[in-house]
Amino acid sequence: MMIVMKEGASKAEIDAVIKRVESVGAHAHISAGELVTVIGAIGDREHVANLGLEGAPGVDHLVPILKPYKLASLQYRREQRTVLEIDGRRIGGEHFATIAGPCTVESREVLLDTARTVRDAGAQFLRGGAYKPRTSPYSFQGLGEAGLRLLAEAKAETGLPIVTELLDSQHADVIHEHADVVQIGARNMQNYALLEVAGKLGLPVLLKRGLSSSLEELLMAADYVLKEGNERVMLCERGIRTFETATRFTLDLSAVPWLKLHTHLPVIVDPSHATGDRRLVEPLARAAAAVGADGIIVEVHGDPEAALCDGPHSLYAHDFGDFARRVAAHAELDGKRIA
Amino acid sequence: MMIVMKEGASKAEIDAVIKRVESVGAHAHISAGELVTVIGAIGDREHVANLGLEGAPGVDHLVPILKPYKLASLQYRREQRTVLEIDGRRIGGEHFATIAGPCTVESREVLLDTARTVRDAGAQFLRGGAYKPRTSPYSFQGLGEAGLRLLAEAKAETGLPIVTELLDSQHADVIHEHADVVQIGARNMQNYALLEVAGKLGLPVLLKRGLSSSLEELLMAADYVLKEGNERVMLCERGIRTFETATRFTLDLSAVPWLKLHTHLPVIVDPSHATGDRRLVEPLARAAAAVGADGIIVEVHGDPEAALCDGPHSLYAHDFGDFARRVAAHAELDGKRIA
Amino acid sequence: MMIVMKEGASKAEIDAVIKRVESVGAHAHISAGELVTVIGAIGDREHVANLGLEGAPGVDHLVPILKPYKLASLQYRREQRTVLEIDGRRIGGEHFATIAGPCTVESREVLLDTARTVRDAGAQFLRGGAYKPRTSPYSFQGLGEAGLRLLAEAKAETGLPIVTELLDSQHADVIHEHADVVQIGARNMQNYALLEVAGKLGLPVLLKRGLSSSLEELLMAADYVLKEGNERVMLCERGIRTFETATRFTLDLSAVPWLKLHTHLPVIVDPSHATGDRRLVEPLARAAAAVGADGIIVEVHGDPEAALCDGPHSLYAHDFGDFARRVAAHAELDGKRIA
Amino acid sequence: MMIVMKEGASKAEIDAVIKRVESVGAHAHISAGELVTVIGAIGDREHVANLGLEGAPGVDHLVPILKPYKLASLQYRREQRTVLEIDGRRIGGEHFATIAGPCTVESREVLLDTARTVRDAGAQFLRGGAYKPRTSPYSFQGLGEAGLRLLAEAKAETGLPIVTELLDSQHADVIHEHADVVQIGARNMQNYALLEVAGKLGLPVLLKRGLSSSLEELLMAADYVLKEGNERVMLCERGIRTFETATRFTLDLSAVPWLKLHTHLPVIVDPSHATGDRRLVEPLARAAAAVGADGIIVEVHGDPEAALCDGPHSLYAHDFGDFARRVAAHAELDGKRIA
Repeated sequence: MMIVMKEGASKAEIDAVIKRVESVGAHAHISAGELVTVIGAIGDREHVANLGLEGAPGVDHLVPILKPYKLASLQYRREQRTVLEIDGRRIGGEHFATIAGPCTVESREVLLDTARTVRDAGAQFLRGGAYKPRTSPYSFQGLGEAGLRLLAEAKAETGLPIVTELLDSQHADVIHEHADVVQIGARNMQNYALLEVAGKLGLPVLLKRGLSSSLEELLMAADYVLKEGNERVMLCERGIRTFETATRFTLDLSAVPWLKLHTHLPVIVDPSHATGDRRLVEPLARAAAAVGADGIIVEVHGDPEAALCDGPHSLYAHDFGDFARRVAAHAELDGKRIA
Repeated sequence: MMIVMKEGASKAEIDAVIKRVESVGAHAHISAGELVTVIGAIGDREHVANLGLEGAPGVDHLVPILKPYKLASLQYRREQRTVLEIDGRRIGGEHFATIAGPCTVESREVLLDTARTVRDAGAQFLRGGAYKPRTSPYSFQGLGEAGLRLLAEAKAETGLPIVTELLDSQHADVIHEHADVVQIGARNMQNYALLEVAGKLGLPVLLKRGLSSSLEELLMAADYVLKEGNERVMLCERGIRTFETATRFTLDLSAVPWLKLHTHLPVIVDPSHATGDRRLVEPLARAAAAVGADGIIVEVHGDPEAALCDGPHSLYAHDFGDFARRVAAHAELDGKRIA
Repeated sequence: MMIVMKEGASKAEIDAVIKRVESVGAHAHISAGELVTVIGAIGDREHVANLGLEGAPGVDHLVPILKPYKLASLQYRREQRTVLEIDGRRIGGEHFATIAGPCTVESREVLLDTARTVRDAGAQFLRGGAYKPRTSPYSFQGLGEAGLRLLAEAKAETGLPIVTELLDSQHADVIHEHADVVQIGARNMQNYALLEVAGKLGLPVLLKRGLSSSLEELLMAADYVLKEGNERVMLCERGIRTFETATRFTLDLSAVPWLKLHTHLPVIVDPSHATGDRRLVEPLARAAAAVGADGIIVEVHGDPEAALCDGPHSLYAHDFGDFARRVAAHAELDGKRIA
Repeated sequence: MMIVMKEGASKAEIDAVIKRVESVGAHAHISAGELVTVIGAIGDREHVANLGLEGAPGVDHLVPILKPYKLASLQYRREQRTVLEIDGRRIGGEHFATIAGPCTVESREVLLDTARTVRDAGAQFLRGGAYKPRTSPYSFQGLGEAGLRLLAEAKAETGLPIVTELLDSQHADVIHEHADVVQIGARNMQNYALLEVAGKLGLPVLLKRGLSSSLEELLMAADYVLKEGNERVMLCERGIRTFETATRFTLDLSAVPWLKLHTHLPVIVDPSHATGDRRLVEPLARAAAAVGADGIIVEVHGDPEAALCDGPHSLYAHDFGDFARRVAAHAELDGKRIA
């Protein structure tokens, strides 16, 4: 932590800061410029942060030096990237994966049809929501456990591992029984109790970035899962909230190469929820592949017009084969392998 | 719902939309302008929304007409404002309330000292966190149940009702036992499962706006609590996330009069977390009173430099009496009564 | 400037950075922590910034230490606040001023009526636009020079000094002839050529914060004016662009006390453009007074329904007297004097 | 324009609105739902907007139906996309173009070296700033006219047309003499006086999106240029300001396919300024090509470490050939031709 003193801070103020830094066992390193003195506090980050030196007499502001996340950092793994292996499918490193399926499980027939279609088109995972977080309490909230059983049936038929969302700790057991990958949704990225529950389940976790979470906060959220001993985490950029309302959210594709510089975890992209508009999904899926993502997660529906949820941005199942091929071509151009 | 067709939409496209609107029992009302046709779909909002008409052939975009929240709306209560009565304290209408206390319960002595100070200075409620949501898994996470017991002790001594945060449904029982007002934190505003649990507890709920939640979403979140039959909800503006980093968040004081135009629920303001800087807390607390808020919630600490959490923006306990008087003067100027 | 090296940066990389820092005459001060080395570059800010050390081998990131603005800073004036004196009116320090008038000058009669009303109600300045920046090229763009002449007539009759916007350097002469205070609008806050022109006119400048400008950028923009030798600058918070669309912009009232901590310049608030809704203007004007602003600038119109521009948020002239009294009461509560 | 009345609006209030709509020659079309009445005002958009019906008794809010831009819209050109032809180079339609060069012209030698390198690597245009908008008044502001003459020399030697920024109307003549494409920078996107000057020069205009401008505002800004009779306009996404500070701005690649749905103008992407970090430029340039952009504009420097401006995100000239090839491959994959 660097403590930047105000211009004109007195010697007594500087000495008081040094004394407090040393009081928690940290070492104070003084750098006196012409106008401003900077005190480096070398020691335990939390201890120094808890000193509450912001606002202390003579202190202008504090600058943290060490990154606030640990287990998720690329340096922690000595630059070795994590490749997840899930039921024989790989994601990360040179492996590009496609996760596809309906937003919400609605009926047996539509789910099985969609599952067969995406499997035949080369998807590696089936996504589908059984418990749905809905902004409005008056919207369809998902089929719950019945939906999970339908997903299990779809897996039995297609062989595709299941990605589904854990919405609350009370569903942990039933999710554990039926899911292959546990999704933590954007609205729960900072639901720390849930992150710990997910970490303990022992299943791979797909962690979506919060609507207004910084990338550093995303990595800290990953640390909440990783510290439970669960090393199989993938991150997902799904659009952030900005002033622009032409698209539902603003897909932050810069996040992908930035994350690649800072974490060893695989990074995938969800162009469906980000845009809320089917016509934008393919261009952004291609861009996700070109920018270096390790995969995409997209919504596909046999009959989007009849979908109870998120119809407007679901791809038509009958278009999905061509879509997947075009996206894969961009991933391959940069050296990725498609299963 | 108004369905705005594209310029040049064909008659067949228009007819197809009308047919789909009518298929869910809604009435289609056509308004043909020179360039553009607009179709009003009059009927159940959810049914029409679920038609997924966005992206249908010839459709440009959809405009919802009815507000997405119901129970929280001012019109639902026929313009009658809710006044909460909690242990003899009132909040809402002409009653301005001050909720004060430490960010987190840390030690018996500091808590009791602070509680006495804020009670003597005229605070109506004691706040204090036992379970703390922390961005970093390496930060102090609160004392848990032991903290709740200390709060109960502080209440026994000062008579101040307790406001404390419910972080996860697994803590619901113990929170129910010790709290007088259940706080839902900003990061959980869209944790719908938790909102329902809070609604069922039967205690008054203090619902904080999410970091990047729109005011409409805040009112929908309130509906999640209200629909459980719990009518005692107050809303809290606590700063939103914007591009500006000079302050920790951007306190959106326009939210207060806007909410007063749209909801019957009391609205309070948290200037402490919004700013992250003690020097800004009093000006913004005065502004909150002047803008028409029904109360404030502020952090106060006997020894902020020693606080384990949020020291930098905690008010000094010995300043709190003057602070409270100056804030109250602004509230009184606009016709509020201070208990 | 502090240069934070990566964990594991090599000695050669550290030495190379030191050498480059010293190559521009700066002094390098090394602080070696357990994990990370930080190099303080003590010397000319611009020289060091221009080294382009971001992205150099072994460098993680740079942290500027000195503030990027100079002339506008409170320290530059040794904590002495600027009080502007304009035609006998004062603004800043203990003087609270009200600037009022129509958005745009539209007709002689309406302007003179409004001017008399706001003068009688105690406003110190008359605002009115002759040149209007309009988002749409198809909107009314102002009366131009004819509008300025009407403003001069209103001044002759009421004695109120005129505040009007300079939109382009080609209007500098005619603005100079008729205006008492030159307004730089939000969309031009980073139009540096225009800032220099405004600085050279010799008239007081009212500088509005850009829609998405940080407070540091606002102070740098003020420096562009101040460096022309023009010391009469006031700043204006008028709402920033955020994700929230319930109000037109998000009025950032935290900006006022933050600016008071960092600059000697007076700070006023424009609640009219920020909200775009007449019903929110008074609560926010009261809040501006309570938060410590040195004045407000508001739109008033004799017949807002007939206004060609910004009718929806203009106050009714017949309400303005009561409005001004209620706002002034909040300013006086915190020790301001009203002329 | 649709006027949404409040729940419970009285018949008198509804009639008053209808009367006002008809007073400006518009036709009022009434749609009475169970809870809410909506009045469609069919007629001139500006006239109806100027009625100022927001805030009128019984009115809840207004919803504009027609798009606020005209000349830039895809429908205006009957879905025919504009292809710019500049000195034999094409941009738009199936033509992908690369614009490259240093941020600022600094020295003859570096400029000529860089120009030759980017020409040999296949760039179609040379970019370079002579007048630079700098946030800080203490930063290097460009060489001015001398810089333009160096650009002319670089063109003479390499044949590459010149793209350079027009910063103020006073430079219009000298820019006209030396530039082949006039750039309007992000900070001037809403400098309407300058847009009109640029429109009148008769040169192609590269219009950058403002830091916090919506896509609709970008198209309205384009209309300011187009209405001067200048049909050669290209748009440029260069990153918007959001809460995320990991990258300098947030590159909004969704803007590209959204713009393609709404405008006939070519759209290019600037990954250099958006990210501020050389390591992110190539991934985002590839993504821009994959998302369907008509070109990119990137900064290249022979010796970025010595650059006076924007060194940290400039590509190394010696890497530029490989960079351009990899980006082009993504553009070709989706059917673009590279000159």
